Amino acid sequence: MNTRAFSFIAGREGPWAIESIREVVGTGLPVAPRLDIQPGMLKDAAAGAPWVLRGVTSNDRYVTRPEKEPLVAASPPLGRPTATCAALIPIRKSPAWWALTQDERRAVLEERSGHIAHGMRALPAVARRLHHCRDLGHAEPFDFLTWFEYAPADAHVFEQLVATLRATEEWKYVEREVDVRLIRDEPGQ
Amino acid sequence: MNTRAFSFIAGREGPWAIESIREVVGTGLPVAPRLDIQPGMLKDAAAGAPWVLRGVTSNDRYVTRPEKEPLVAASPPLGRPTATCAALIPIRKSPAWWALTQDERRAVLEERSGHIAHGMRALPAVARRLHHCRDLGHAEPFDFLTWFEYAPADAHVFEQLVATLRATEEWKYVEREVDVRLIRDEPGQ
Repeated sequence: MNTRAFSFIAGREGPWAIESIREVVGTGLPVAPRLDIQPGMLKDAAAGAPWVLRGVTSNDRYVTRPEKEPLVAASPPLGRPTATCAALIPIRKSPAWWALTQDERRAVLEERSGHIAHGMRALPAVARRLHHCRDLGHAEPFDFLTWFEYAPADAHVFEQLVATLRATEEWKYVEREVDVRLIRDEPGQ
Repeated sequence: MNTRAFSFIAGREGPWAIESIREVVGTGLPVAPRLDIQPGMLKDAAAGAPWVLRGVTSNDRYVTRPEKEPLVAASPPLGRPTATCAALIPIRKSPAWWALTQDERRAVLEERSGHIAHGMRALPAVARRLHHCRDLGHAEPFDFLTWFEYAPADAHVFEQLVATLRATEEWKYVEREVDVRLIRDEPGQ
């Protein structure tokens, strides 16, 4: 097993209650009452789940050293007891995005869209873990799964972050996006 | 199936005769007489093979637009009838490499090691396809598989390329490398 692999399993179990599933761009995802997150790559059939999304955490693709130090210093861990709100935002980017070269993608993502800077401003309120799905060996419906956790009192910080990012030039390359909101109501898990 | 996925299957079948398998850094790979290359992710057990290596082609990680145009213009396709020599070079890079930020990896790879420039000088003699394995959902023994094809008369161009790359600063981050050399003796396949 790749120890950086995670499966997001929608169904009847898991510590997270799914509050809403909204299609932002393109097709959404089927409704389900709860979400579980497990290490490894789980197959849909094995879980008997309405949907399972999989991804791996990986090395930074765009962050530079001067950007990384303050990001790491300010980034909170997942699983804070107070962070009972979460969002799972799967996105797929267009072929036009993937045809850009590294310098072009960086220019769109940060110099023209401020993705890293906007994310920095949401710290330490919003914890985040990015998972890559595009280079898994099997076809996946999304390129990225981003998981966010925050306290109810910090919901406005998260809402500001996603609204800002969705208005950027980078988001013109997003061809599918779903916004799943969750509440942790089983604090023991 | 991810249409960018490929499996390199060592065993009794396939158009490529394995001439040699040499460990360059770290542990090598078991001997086998032939190599087959198939689309998709094949499991070791399914093939009954001494070894199967898997990877996916992906977007450029380091190449800039000014570099990409001449690279694309000069790059030959795989499968040229005259290109009866091949090399499969699986490598794994160290945790220190993966802990570098994007700007640091680019500086080592190109500004200080000339990886892209050296590759450019081997065109159009040497055809190349890079496969990524690090972000597959299952653990793989290597991070990259690079497949090269060239004519016997151009072998010196390929030897110069690999010797030059192995002497670079980038290669200090290579913690495992195997060099598999092959000859295509079944021209119909």
